[in-house]
Amino acid sequence: MSDDAARHREKMEKRKAVQDAEVAGKTLEKGLLLVHTGPGKGKSTAALGLMLRALGRGWRVGMVQFIKGGWDTGERHAVAAFGDRVVWHTLGEGFTWETQDKARDIAACRHAWEVAEGLMADPTIRLLALDELNIALRYDYLALDAVLAALRARRPDLHVVVTGRNAKPALIEAADLVTEMGSVKHHFAAGVKAQEGIEF
Amino acid sequence: MSDDAARHREKMEKRKAVQDAEVAGKTLEKGLLLVHTGPGKGKSTAALGLMLRALGRGWRVGMVQFIKGGWDTGERHAVAAFGDRVVWHTLGEGFTWETQDKARDIAACRHAWEVAEGLMADPTIRLLALDELNIALRYDYLALDAVLAALRARRPDLHVVVTGRNAKPALIEAADLVTEMGSVKHHFAAGVKAQEGIEF
Repeated sequence: MSDDAARHREKMEKRKAVQDAEVAGKTLEKGLLLVHTGPGKGKSTAALGLMLRALGRGWRVGMVQFIKGGWDTGERHAVAAFGDRVVWHTLGEGFTWETQDKARDIAACRHAWEVAEGLMADPTIRLLALDELNIALRYDYLALDAVLAALRARRPDLHVVVTGRNAKPALIEAADLVTEMGSVKHHFAAGVKAQEGIEF
Repeated sequence: MSDDAARHREKMEKRKAVQDAEVAGKTLEKGLLLVHTGPGKGKSTAALGLMLRALGRGWRVGMVQFIKGGWDTGERHAVAAFGDRVVWHTLGEGFTWETQDKARDIAACRHAWEVAEGLMADPTIRLLALDELNIALRYDYLALDAVLAALRARRPDLHVVVTGRNAKPALIEAADLVTEMGSVKHHFAAGVKAQEGIEF
């Protein structure tokens, strides 16, 4: 073995010892509250990836979309491959500038939240995605206290992922994992349109 | 209509006009180079979500994992639902502290890159995920210039998503979309272990 290879091995042996000790120190298992926030792309998309992984473990999963309305999306077609192991509700009415009707937006969010509460109470669901819930909270279309109380009272084995910009500080406080998606560069700025298969 | 509702509608009408003009200004369609980097969770998971969306549009997609080795993962099981529309290669040997053998790590990355080049040349593939390619580039296990040249010379309709921390500045420069996943809060710090169905 060359000196370089020997040095590399020695360094990596030490690093592995540190890693192993770290892994051994983590023993808790629990249903997580995950939050994907920030202005960058990938918040809802990473929630879809979580759903795919969970489906690969044989779990039943739920999705409630609070803002997105009746658009035709690739993800909706894709999850049909998993039959009734995916419960998918698209209950938004589009963005607020589409509906231009605050009362209708609020009613849609309240209905979506009722559906979400129903799924949280369904013991067959192991992962629930609440897509764009942060938007509904930001505009006070839903009462933050009631939402947080329900999330905190969830079954111990239920994982919930909440997406949307501008997550409320109290939600971040309650969460186990929070990722902030930052936008370093976006193709829309270069005049590229939203494309089927990528954006929807 | 109440004054408040009328004001909301007027504000949203203006906002919709701005949005519509912005959307109308974006007319280009192209295969994108997307990069998910940063220390936070969701880089590979958002790439999985992109694959799911693309599969829902009937696309054929590819995945090459440069670092992850022969671990049993939920995502690998899940994509079996899409048959030969997913071409999946797990070609890593684990993290460098697992193999402790730099020459073997380099050989594995070079083989993975050859496989990736083969998939880039396959006209039936519309989206290709190069998972943890940034790690291989960071440790100079692959030549950055050669990788960038191949990515730049990709077919016009091929979307490529590259994941991993510490994306090289030249890759960011070449990319159409770059999201930096920031870690605001992580459950590992609270002693929670990596759990089946969520982390793998």
